Amino acid sequence: MPCTGLIFRRPIPADYERVVGVMVAWWDGRDLRGMLPQIFFEHFRSTSLVAEHEDELIGFLVGFLCPDHDDEAYIHFAGVHPAWRRSGLASDLYRRFFALARASGRPLVHAVTGPLNAGSIAFHTAIGFTILPGDEDVDGRPVSADGGPLREHAVRFELRLDEAHAGQGGGP
Amino acid sequence: MPCTGLIFRRPIPADYERVVGVMVAWWDGRDLRGMLPQIFFEHFRSTSLVAEHEDELIGFLVGFLCPDHDDEAYIHFAGVHPAWRRSGLASDLYRRFFALARASGRPLVHAVTGPLNAGSIAFHTAIGFTILPGDEDVDGRPVSADGGPLREHAVRFELRLDEAHAGQGGGP
Repeated sequence: MPCTGLIFRRPIPADYERVVGVMVAWWDGRDLRGMLPQIFFEHFRSTSLVAEHEDELIGFLVGFLCPDHDDEAYIHFAGVHPAWRRSGLASDLYRRFFALARASGRPLVHAVTGPLNAGSIAFHTAIGFTILPGDEDVDGRPVSADGGPLREHAVRFELRLDEAHAGQGGGP
Repeated sequence: MPCTGLIFRRPIPADYERVVGVMVAWWDGRDLRGMLPQIFFEHFRSTSLVAEHEDELIGFLVGFLCPDHDDEAYIHFAGVHPAWRRSGLASDLYRRFFALARASGRPLVHAVTGPLNAGSIAFHTAIGFTILPGDEDVDGRPVSADGGPLREHAVRFELRLDEAHAGQGGGP
């Protein structure tokens, strides 16, 4: 991954508009913008990240420390510019979040993706997540019905942090 | 407000489906379900409430203690069954959240509503919220552009808890 001009930082509220401005393109035309309310860019900034290359937004991760479960951190949304896929950027964002979760005493990290998002599923398992048991199977993968407005199904991931995930940045 | 058979409790994950199942009807046909991701019913239950009357869902409030601002609590979404409007139920839900915010050392409570939701604006000001300054005016009210997918405007409310808001339930 080229490092020149690459910056990781906490988001500011104005980044919300930049992120929702790229989401449809980054998600191959799927409009998931409604799943990312602006409040995340107001109230969860200390556990979120944006990545920029020469002032262009190339990645983001929105997460939080689960208020109801004091051993757990949750990655709500993460995205990488299509031109930066397979560059290690997503791993880098995740590893930075892992370091933050560990530093906050949260050994358990959860994340969720859609059952048809094969790239996301491959990424999560490659970085060390386990797929949690679900209510049913889709394409041989356990998925959970989340009961949402669109009756979405979700693949749920869990990763227990240990020394293997202690790295700050870098990644495969 | 009739008290027989009225129960307030923390939500369980299964309440998510019940809540999104009534939202369109409770919001007069507007579909705001996308603004309430399921994760709130997994990770913010300790700062959320549902109200039931004889096992029927009649109200809910979803809030959290702002992770990035340690003096602040935020009410993300609250709704009341149309038949229970003006019964004091919304006030009751809010006052229970105020008590929780106070007990958690959060003297500042924020909430947001749409600029066209006159009932919600009247409710928030009646219960003691102040409308925060915005970027522009809609119908004489200060509103902020939130830069969201639909370029929604929002009326932002703030309430500083003092002895006047110490009550647990009841309300006007």
